[in-house]
Amino acid sequence: MMKNVISAVCVKCGAEHEATPDVTTCKKCGGILDIVYDYNYIKTQLTKEKLARREKSMWRYTELLPVTGESKSPKLRVGWSPMYNAQRLAEQIGIKSLYIKDDGINPTASLKDRASSMAVVKAEEAGKDTIACSSTGNAASSLAGNSAAAGFKTYIFVPERAPKGKVAQLMMFGATVISVKGSYEDTFRLSAEAIDRWGWYNRNAAINPYLIEGKKTVALEIAEQLDWKMPDYLAISVGDGCTIGGVWKGLKDLYSIGFIDKLPRLISVQAEGCYPINKAFAENRPLEHMDENTIADSIAVGVPRNPDKALRAIRESNGIAINVSDEEILAAMRTLGRTCGVFAEPAGAAGTAGLIKAVKQGLIKSDATVVSVVTGNGLKDVANAIKAAGEPICIPPDMGMLIDAFKAAKK
Amino acid sequence: MMKNVISAVCVKCGAEHEATPDVTTCKKCGGILDIVYDYNYIKTQLTKEKLARREKSMWRYTELLPVTGESKSPKLRVGWSPMYNAQRLAEQIGIKSLYIKDDGINPTASLKDRASSMAVVKAEEAGKDTIACSSTGNAASSLAGNSAAAGFKTYIFVPERAPKGKVAQLMMFGATVISVKGSYEDTFRLSAEAIDRWGWYNRNAAINPYLIEGKKTVALEIAEQLDWKMPDYLAISVGDGCTIGGVWKGLKDLYSIGFIDKLPRLISVQAEGCYPINKAFAENRPLEHMDENTIADSIAVGVPRNPDKALRAIRESNGIAINVSDEEILAAMRTLGRTCGVFAEPAGAAGTAGLIKAVKQGLIKSDATVVSVVTGNGLKDVANAIKAAGEPICIPPDMGMLIDAFKAAKK
Repeated sequence: MMKNVISAVCVKCGAEHEATPDVTTCKKCGGILDIVYDYNYIKTQLTKEKLARREKSMWRYTELLPVTGESKSPKLRVGWSPMYNAQRLAEQIGIKSLYIKDDGINPTASLKDRASSMAVVKAEEAGKDTIACSSTGNAASSLAGNSAAAGFKTYIFVPERAPKGKVAQLMMFGATVISVKGSYEDTFRLSAEAIDRWGWYNRNAAINPYLIEGKKTVALEIAEQLDWKMPDYLAISVGDGCTIGGVWKGLKDLYSIGFIDKLPRLISVQAEGCYPINKAFAENRPLEHMDENTIADSIAVGVPRNPDKALRAIRESNGIAINVSDEEILAAMRTLGRTCGVFAEPAGAAGTAGLIKAVKQGLIKSDATVVSVVTGNGLKDVANAIKAAGEPICIPPDMGMLIDAFKAAKK
Repeated sequence: MMKNVISAVCVKCGAEHEATPDVTTCKKCGGILDIVYDYNYIKTQLTKEKLARREKSMWRYTELLPVTGESKSPKLRVGWSPMYNAQRLAEQIGIKSLYIKDDGINPTASLKDRASSMAVVKAEEAGKDTIACSSTGNAASSLAGNSAAAGFKTYIFVPERAPKGKVAQLMMFGATVISVKGSYEDTFRLSAEAIDRWGWYNRNAAINPYLIEGKKTVALEIAEQLDWKMPDYLAISVGDGCTIGGVWKGLKDLYSIGFIDKLPRLISVQAEGCYPINKAFAENRPLEHMDENTIADSIAVGVPRNPDKALRAIRESNGIAINVSDEEILAAMRTLGRTCGVFAEPAGAAGTAGLIKAVKQGLIKSDATVVSVVTGNGLKDVANAIKAAGEPICIPPDMGMLIDAFKAAKK
């Protein structure tokens, strides 16, 4: 029994469901559910002083999470990623202050560990011993890693085009990987059928309402790391929409219990080659599917499965939607590396690329304070880092030639 | 003025040097120096209770580090990596308890960040604005990342055979990379000449005595995370010898100030294809150079530049030297992934491979408690992960075929 959770409400039709550990989508209309909290109760339980003494992980916010005191602790240490004051980069961009939240430092090197850590805890509550999903990316590797640590079996369905390196990472964590000869849609359908048949726990952020509750912890941490003084803007890359939905949920949670007195405007960043959510927001029309043409594979989602929460987040926050080119993403990767020492994967740098572009377009003023979230580590995609990096100085082992090379480089 | 540091003493001839920020090797014999602390003074300054309240990074141990209160804080958050209680793996191996210290979670994904964080702080103290080293591996990427965050210029010399992916990472952090058409020896010589000529700060763990003081923080953390109850053994992979030397220094520091009352025996693990330090220890003879034939590139050091501290550490701790094959390393990578959710690069898994082998050989008894350090993240070397991982199940999108495939896999 969760004293802090009231129910799970459909974001489409408003139907109320009991927040059981294995609840998925709305029984009436199929819409995605939203976990509803009893903020009055939480206010009596959680104080900033209590928080300050707790372990440094996403699980420090237990009163704001859909778990009970008896929920089993996950094994991997997820969250409490560093938040860097990036003053030099702020000056370079032309804003007052900038913080970089580096979520690439999580156990499997992406923000998705927050959702997978939650999935493992809820699967345990649901009495399951097996978790499944269909994905080739960070969701899959984070599920495989967090499941392995907790002793769960994992089944992951990938389309056969999935890169060998990513499949290898899944197999290293002991996941059973099913490579499906077909499209992503074929893969997803087969996984859904298999999950139904064998009763596995479903780790799919667009179906399982608890995963966004894990993702929201990135926003809770940002607020606490800023001593509850919120920035004017929060920039984040957007793929299927679950992460930005989670960020907004976390911010509203904190506002509802009086921990913060201001909500930042969200900067929703997608790739110019794939921006269905930003398009729906900008044109205020229903979402249309798009092609997936970008190097930022982690946000290349042409058929987002969770647009409702994302669109609500952008709209409610009076947000900004910005689309960036692959060149702008590669440039942001270089900028983050050079000024902050943070190595981001393309999707991880997209938020910062969007911020830079928004400032250039005059959408963000020079007195603004901003947080930009890096959602994944650059080591996940070395091929694109090579594209972004440029060439080294290449010389024989000779001091005279080194001096000449330096002189030439300065010209 | 460092009140806690007495001097820098040569480990070969015993000559004493002033511990200036830019001190390198012994002026008399060229030997590596060791930073000597005033433990009586430190005892009056540091208590376990004081420690418990400090920030979660390697810099929490300031009284045991060669810095003053005025030393500038580094930008990247290095250290306080997670220590996992790996009970399932302990049972599988056949020992009483096992802890895995995952140092792959550092900002540039290896233990070397501890040394580079220290290098940046000491370079600042020395009034330098540029840091240099010659390396293709984790030392280089950690220097590039930590330097970039702190606003230092970085020059890194690599032999032309250095993998493009690793060079790309350095360039992403804005390092000037000089690719030298020649051997590693040619590269090292050119870097030494350039460092001399331009007066750059020298980040070379076998020359700069402060770097080992950064590396030792991994041992300080292990002790604190175990509530100062030391294990019987500590397993770690060994390349040039600086890391195991640092681990031992940290343990002796804690023993000297009375924070621990027992010193673990060190398990020094090298690759069967390159084990000059373990050979010198086992045969009790001077070190001889060896070829470098192993997939564990981060410990493939045929000409170790710091054997003295490493050999002293293994001998003083009544240690065990174990050499492991590439197959044993790949198997340990799988085991760490499957039972702990920790993805290690080959050198990072070598310590655990050595532990498993030592238990099999009866060198370690079933009632032993052990800590094994994972020194780097597997994302650094996906090619070898692919070798270790095996093949996925490959089928068309058909439920009947999935059922058949599962049945076949169970046979």
